[in-house]
Amino acid sequence: MRYGPMFGPDVTFLGVDRCDLGEPSSFADADVVILGAPFDGGTTNRPGTRFGPSAMRQACYLEHDGSRPSLALRTDGLRDLKVYDAGDVEMFSGDIERALGALEEAVATVAAAGAIPLVLGGDHSITLPDAKGVARHHGYGRVSMVHFDAHADTGEIEFGSLYGHGLPMRRLIESGAIRGDRFLQIGLRGYWPGPTVLDWMAEQRMRSYEMSEIVARGVDECLSEAFTTAVDECEGVFLSVDIDVVDPGMAPGTGTPEPGGLTARQLLDAVRRCCLELPIVGVDVVEVSPPYDHADITAYLGNRVVLEALSAVARRRSGEPWDPSQPLLDGR
Amino acid sequence: MRYGPMFGPDVTFLGVDRCDLGEPSSFADADVVILGAPFDGGTTNRPGTRFGPSAMRQACYLEHDGSRPSLALRTDGLRDLKVYDAGDVEMFSGDIERALGALEEAVATVAAAGAIPLVLGGDHSITLPDAKGVARHHGYGRVSMVHFDAHADTGEIEFGSLYGHGLPMRRLIESGAIRGDRFLQIGLRGYWPGPTVLDWMAEQRMRSYEMSEIVARGVDECLSEAFTTAVDECEGVFLSVDIDVVDPGMAPGTGTPEPGGLTARQLLDAVRRCCLELPIVGVDVVEVSPPYDHADITAYLGNRVVLEALSAVARRRSGEPWDPSQPLLDGR
Amino acid sequence: MRYGPMFGPDVTFLGVDRCDLGEPSSFADADVVILGAPFDGGTTNRPGTRFGPSAMRQACYLEHDGSRPSLALRTDGLRDLKVYDAGDVEMFSGDIERALGALEEAVATVAAAGAIPLVLGGDHSITLPDAKGVARHHGYGRVSMVHFDAHADTGEIEFGSLYGHGLPMRRLIESGAIRGDRFLQIGLRGYWPGPTVLDWMAEQRMRSYEMSEIVARGVDECLSEAFTTAVDECEGVFLSVDIDVVDPGMAPGTGTPEPGGLTARQLLDAVRRCCLELPIVGVDVVEVSPPYDHADITAYLGNRVVLEALSAVARRRSGEPWDPSQPLLDGR
Amino acid sequence: MRYGPMFGPDVTFLGVDRCDLGEPSSFADADVVILGAPFDGGTTNRPGTRFGPSAMRQACYLEHDGSRPSLALRTDGLRDLKVYDAGDVEMFSGDIERALGALEEAVATVAAAGAIPLVLGGDHSITLPDAKGVARHHGYGRVSMVHFDAHADTGEIEFGSLYGHGLPMRRLIESGAIRGDRFLQIGLRGYWPGPTVLDWMAEQRMRSYEMSEIVARGVDECLSEAFTTAVDECEGVFLSVDIDVVDPGMAPGTGTPEPGGLTARQLLDAVRRCCLELPIVGVDVVEVSPPYDHADITAYLGNRVVLEALSAVARRRSGEPWDPSQPLLDGR
Amino acid sequence: MRYGPMFGPDVTFLGVDRCDLGEPSSFADADVVILGAPFDGGTTNRPGTRFGPSAMRQACYLEHDGSRPSLALRTDGLRDLKVYDAGDVEMFSGDIERALGALEEAVATVAAAGAIPLVLGGDHSITLPDAKGVARHHGYGRVSMVHFDAHADTGEIEFGSLYGHGLPMRRLIESGAIRGDRFLQIGLRGYWPGPTVLDWMAEQRMRSYEMSEIVARGVDECLSEAFTTAVDECEGVFLSVDIDVVDPGMAPGTGTPEPGGLTARQLLDAVRRCCLELPIVGVDVVEVSPPYDHADITAYLGNRVVLEALSAVARRRSGEPWDPSQPLLDGR
Amino acid sequence: MRYGPMFGPDVTFLGVDRCDLGEPSSFADADVVILGAPFDGGTTNRPGTRFGPSAMRQACYLEHDGSRPSLALRTDGLRDLKVYDAGDVEMFSGDIERALGALEEAVATVAAAGAIPLVLGGDHSITLPDAKGVARHHGYGRVSMVHFDAHADTGEIEFGSLYGHGLPMRRLIESGAIRGDRFLQIGLRGYWPGPTVLDWMAEQRMRSYEMSEIVARGVDECLSEAFTTAVDECEGVFLSVDIDVVDPGMAPGTGTPEPGGLTARQLLDAVRRCCLELPIVGVDVVEVSPPYDHADITAYLGNRVVLEALSAVARRRSGEPWDPSQPLLDGR
Repeated sequence: MRYGPMFGPDVTFLGVDRCDLGEPSSFADADVVILGAPFDGGTTNRPGTRFGPSAMRQACYLEHDGSRPSLALRTDGLRDLKVYDAGDVEMFSGDIERALGALEEAVATVAAAGAIPLVLGGDHSITLPDAKGVARHHGYGRVSMVHFDAHADTGEIEFGSLYGHGLPMRRLIESGAIRGDRFLQIGLRGYWPGPTVLDWMAEQRMRSYEMSEIVARGVDECLSEAFTTAVDECEGVFLSVDIDVVDPGMAPGTGTPEPGGLTARQLLDAVRRCCLELPIVGVDVVEVSPPYDHADITAYLGNRVVLEALSAVARRRSGEPWDPSQPLLDGR
Repeated sequence: MRYGPMFGPDVTFLGVDRCDLGEPSSFADADVVILGAPFDGGTTNRPGTRFGPSAMRQACYLEHDGSRPSLALRTDGLRDLKVYDAGDVEMFSGDIERALGALEEAVATVAAAGAIPLVLGGDHSITLPDAKGVARHHGYGRVSMVHFDAHADTGEIEFGSLYGHGLPMRRLIESGAIRGDRFLQIGLRGYWPGPTVLDWMAEQRMRSYEMSEIVARGVDECLSEAFTTAVDECEGVFLSVDIDVVDPGMAPGTGTPEPGGLTARQLLDAVRRCCLELPIVGVDVVEVSPPYDHADITAYLGNRVVLEALSAVARRRSGEPWDPSQPLLDGR
Repeated sequence: MRYGPMFGPDVTFLGVDRCDLGEPSSFADADVVILGAPFDGGTTNRPGTRFGPSAMRQACYLEHDGSRPSLALRTDGLRDLKVYDAGDVEMFSGDIERALGALEEAVATVAAAGAIPLVLGGDHSITLPDAKGVARHHGYGRVSMVHFDAHADTGEIEFGSLYGHGLPMRRLIESGAIRGDRFLQIGLRGYWPGPTVLDWMAEQRMRSYEMSEIVARGVDECLSEAFTTAVDECEGVFLSVDIDVVDPGMAPGTGTPEPGGLTARQLLDAVRRCCLELPIVGVDVVEVSPPYDHADITAYLGNRVVLEALSAVARRRSGEPWDPSQPLLDGR
Repeated sequence: MRYGPMFGPDVTFLGVDRCDLGEPSSFADADVVILGAPFDGGTTNRPGTRFGPSAMRQACYLEHDGSRPSLALRTDGLRDLKVYDAGDVEMFSGDIERALGALEEAVATVAAAGAIPLVLGGDHSITLPDAKGVARHHGYGRVSMVHFDAHADTGEIEFGSLYGHGLPMRRLIESGAIRGDRFLQIGLRGYWPGPTVLDWMAEQRMRSYEMSEIVARGVDECLSEAFTTAVDECEGVFLSVDIDVVDPGMAPGTGTPEPGGLTARQLLDAVRRCCLELPIVGVDVVEVSPPYDHADITAYLGNRVVLEALSAVARRRSGEPWDPSQPLLDGR
Repeated sequence: MRYGPMFGPDVTFLGVDRCDLGEPSSFADADVVILGAPFDGGTTNRPGTRFGPSAMRQACYLEHDGSRPSLALRTDGLRDLKVYDAGDVEMFSGDIERALGALEEAVATVAAAGAIPLVLGGDHSITLPDAKGVARHHGYGRVSMVHFDAHADTGEIEFGSLYGHGLPMRRLIESGAIRGDRFLQIGLRGYWPGPTVLDWMAEQRMRSYEMSEIVARGVDECLSEAFTTAVDECEGVFLSVDIDVVDPGMAPGTGTPEPGGLTARQLLDAVRRCCLELPIVGVDVVEVSPPYDHADITAYLGNRVVLEALSAVARRRSGEPWDPSQPLLDGR
Repeated sequence: MRYGPMFGPDVTFLGVDRCDLGEPSSFADADVVILGAPFDGGTTNRPGTRFGPSAMRQACYLEHDGSRPSLALRTDGLRDLKVYDAGDVEMFSGDIERALGALEEAVATVAAAGAIPLVLGGDHSITLPDAKGVARHHGYGRVSMVHFDAHADTGEIEFGSLYGHGLPMRRLIESGAIRGDRFLQIGLRGYWPGPTVLDWMAEQRMRSYEMSEIVARGVDECLSEAFTTAVDECEGVFLSVDIDVVDPGMAPGTGTPEPGGLTARQLLDAVRRCCLELPIVGVDVVEVSPPYDHADITAYLGNRVVLEALSAVARRRSGEPWDPSQPLLDGR
């Protein structure tokens, strides 16, 4: 009954075990279930993210053996947690409403089973069903959002549609799934959206860290401040990572590149902190577009964002505190 | 009121005049109206054809001055005919039914004005509205189809949808717009579709020239035979050119490359013959996918297919016969 | 016990079933067993063929479902034959003797089971173990060779080694596995080897068709002549296809590109004839180098060479004659 | 009379209005006039900057509607200022003296009209006419130079010519247009020029910040120091941005890449400060070479440098102070 | 005194000996002297041919040992002839008149020494000095031209200049160096030039074979006819090969790609015939533009055009007739 | 007797003089001898480093004249030191033991002559012979190692071999050439090796700075600490730079990219400090893989790492202290 892959061969994320969403027993013990969302029907410019799940699952030079011990965190995100890959959700890029609906069901199924859904996008329109699916389990308004992105994705309508990769955050807040005042955006920059949308955002009491603020205050201070909000009256946090939060020089394989972003190093460190310090209940990594990539470096980065998140979740669950200054071989 | 471009700056095909489909007077004297169909929501594999219209409009190293005198045909397809570019039709890739509907209206508007619609794709799902829009004017069942392609595009359903780039020819025949026995396919090859679909095609009495037959008999003999059918009980012919009919070596920028195709030279000569010898009432050039192109060579080929068609239509209208062996400078 | 993939995820050729060379029962009913030879330690110039097996297994836009009905040949090479994929042979590129030895054992195991080994290269040094492994079963000197290539690959020594991708054909003849006068080479051209090696080749009574002869006489006449030799006193034919026999324009992803080759269409037709008309006992497809490829077009071509061979073997086994001029939908 | 584009279709920078330098009334109210300098005849290594103007005009995923509200600066550089695009200056790359002369006239025309000329290069040889054209209006020696670059561009002669992209700064100082002691260079590094030229630079009392100094002291401290000099006895500042000041990893599409540069983020912040804190009278952005770019990321960066400059000029003219730490949605 | 390379390291064509044009004794015994013309100041669109000489000198996977025995022609063009490489002529792309003048002197020096100058372009503007330099030795009007190209290159003026890559053939005929009625063009196609220029060409009694005629009559018949003209009242023939005569699919690395050209195989065969059957006195190979190339395939083709020409000149000088149908190993 | 290049033309590093390892007099006065190690037989994933030596020798836009005056350090590493290039060592990638053996001899020959061997890789397996060759001269255990890398390269066995690019550091320590407690690794990150290997490393008392520690403490503090260890009981330091220590965004052309690395600027500054502050006795720069590079930016970085090292060695030998804050033109 497992749908498997929409494109190409049926592989799992670095070789973790498969599960079948249609058979609850196949993932009953899951800590995390990976889902592919091979969809780019919501992009307003360059497509290609339909190949993001396949690319991120494979982008590693090591053996695909379902194990990745983190040097830094001293956990194995794929072994210390029970991680399954449920394959792709069938998402025809030509029918966004049907596609997003199918994804929401899949995510909700995972969340209902007590596991963290980790969705490999796909364009950013998928965060609407991702976060709604999670909120259906944890409670509308009970999940906050930490959102790394160059763009606010709070547009009202695009190409005549209420769905698309520039709009999901607005739809999410309107739906009540995520409270506007628990919506934390990191890395915004550039020339969109305009004043009307920004006014709407301010009305929702969103908190958006533009790059100027991040440069002036430091990313760590901004994160610490954001984390305080994230856990205020919310038990869970959804982490949505748009790869374009990183500078296009280090993440060229994306659809709407905006110069002046974080370094890859900064993103990895920030994701690590999120998953070490916050009660993550859902994750997505979106906007990796292989046709625009070079030597797979953006797919590699997406893969490492996933691993960083899982390693840190595992570390958090271990209960052991973590000191970034500890030498690698210390304590061995 | 003109919609203009869906992506990027508002340019016309090599600098021809603009028109506005909302203002009939702006194209009342048109022989040909170019439409962009920047859509890739119907692709089953690699996307990117949404940038096909923009790429084909611009792929020329000469001045973009709305004039292209053909060395071979001694006509200027952009000047001897009255050619307008109406810009793009808004086609959100995430909503294929709405997108195709909008395109059909645009094409029908052009056909109703007595002009040839020439549609720049876009994936091949657009041929459904292209040919239907034309047939609404010329009469259902009164227009035949000459279809260059590696693929039959006669599938029944894909990703749960009746619309997509593998299905348009079936929908067209089912609709009655084009008669199955006036459907002529040139260049098929490879491993799709399977027996069930082929049986359906045989039932419709389609005539499909697979590459083996083309190699064995010669492309010119195949075309001559096909042309006889094309004008039997049909006053008009729709010409649909999927760039993947050409070998991927010469047309890499496409979504579903199938090795073993025509050369670029063969395609240009074949398109020329179609437009010299047949009463063309509509044209589309589809499946040019810039993200997979190199040095724009596939976009150039698409551009030249358009020019070849227009030059030959102009030559046909001039009434002067054409001899391919005539030396270039003869008669000057 | 199955080794699986040397690089990346464990996928089979377009989804055919897996087998394990260590468990004879797993392929006892095989007509064909596919082996990956992910090796580029024998290349004298551009490496990268280690990724050839993985690339050729995946290069298809259709569903990876273990079925590919050929439009032209009306057989399904993956279903009408029983085809397994045994995964890769472990071949460390830094130790060519050990690597080639391991491959020879694997090939011999397949041949001994009565199946056709079909090896996905890898650089051309692998044809030494491929053909030796086959000859161990069918008898040294009892298997002839049809070899498509831009290069004769009959050098004496390179970089101080007797093994490498310029040398296998000499080693094969010296070993007695293949008789020199049953060695048929198609597509040679360029500036290598020099007179000394050519003299040696003449002494062996090899028959090498350089492109000038092929252009002058036609590829079909050359093939017909070669086929007569191939089955003279030999019961089986090994087919070795170096993708660089095709012009670099249509097969750029290779290590030693030599302009002026066959078209992709010509190669596919020639491979089809080999497998329709000759008793094939082994096949390899070599020198596909993904790092130098563009948009996977060379990997696609390699994939289609494999499918063409399998479709034609299936047709030959069906006993039904084949007429290239038969229209696609005729007889349905 | 407008020349329009040298290459390809006639588009303006992100859709701003056109003007015609031959018709003064068409830009009489301009704050800024954009000029294209599609020239690479002065490059000593990789060419391609002739396509810089076209690439930078188009490199944006948003609608090309002549509006870009800056998130950070809260101004719309294309709307709050009156910005025109005059198209390209005809600059035949094979005749540098004629080409530079034509550009100088165009720039002088703009400056004389009281507008800021903003020139899209083109190789760096264009800064000679750019700054001279500006100085003709504001007074020789009355304009200082802030120059971002990996290279000093103060060579004496190259390939037998006094003009070229390694020489303009020397010619400028020799001409008297810019005083040597008001010449501020940021980001130099690498292995050129040699001691003789450096001695000449020291004699001119230029102030050149090599990357070691920038790393040691911080880019902000260096800029603050440079700004003090820039406005000493000069009423206006010319800002010349060579994209190669950024590390090649983040700006690969350039002709003479020198590793170890600024990040894209640092450049954008520095350009912002220049235009917020200094009385800018002319700008050029040079050395974007599309043939060497990947996924347009260097063209995007060039586009954003232009927007950053315009947004900051608008902010400066508004008179409102700017605080980088202000949260994005604060004050709405 | 040897200038050496304009760009990069000082290498000779596949390792042949160096000579110094300033020291006549260094090439007194030359049959052929290779010159690099690293110039792209005359291109009207994509630049990059300045790197053509370097790319063509190096594009070979074999040892760079100054020897290349041709399989087909059984001569070693680099050994049977005495071939030197004089390095590059200094040609600043920003000063076309000076650059072309310097090249003409270099070519004339070689021709005066009784050797064949073989010039590696560079854009096609270099054929003006190439052929003039040769005609100065052999006599104005005594040398005919065989010119492979997609374009006639007979324009009157471009970008305000009489020099450029679209104009050289007109300047040559105007100068009297080459008679118009001994000007033979093979492979023209596309949409340039327009009627006025074509009329001028007809007046000169040029003979231009457009691709339609070549397809209709066959390239061999066209060549045979052209060869008759070429040697009528002319003792020598200049062979100018613009790589864009080949289809862009097989030669993407060029500045003005025009679909529908010859195959690489056809060009190599045609060049072979020219040099076997005609008294060649000068050669150039132009318009190879590495920045637009992929995997060096166009540079490889340019390299092979040079080797094909040299191998055939050597064969012609040997006096032995050549039969393309002779098997490779026959007669050994 | 000089072997010269394994691939392509025989060029030296930016034009420095050649020497011949077989003729001691040819490098008797050398300070530094450059060796090419064109080997990728030890790579576990993407090959291509066999072209690293050639690429790094040529990657510079300046004249290849054997001189590179450093702006920052005010020395000319190629002139102030006596630097020769001995060409490549013949290293057949298919025979790693023989290849590494040959390299060790070559390195030892250089070291024995009192010069610093500077080896251009090649994959990282070459550091085993590089450091052993040096230690044979300076004494086993008398040379410490400063090792920049994303990976520890201390694996036990790979693909059944004791040699390979993931293993050299273990072999070095086991051999006694380098003491484990004088092994300093900078930049490690990611998911390899696992606990067993890390335990072994700890037992050897290696000191490995993972990126988390580097971010937390600052690269300069880490380096200062490491330097103290490096010179404790060791007279010489071997500097091994794996280009993948830099983030893949800035160094995509490598075989095993690991996101989250140093910036190019950080690496250059760190290499500078090593060579200014430590008694360097050998250097290698490895893992530059041109097939995966874009616009040569990784090759450029490798070239600049070499120049930075040489410039700093020269500065150290000059005895003059260096202040990074000194303005470029100060003191002239």
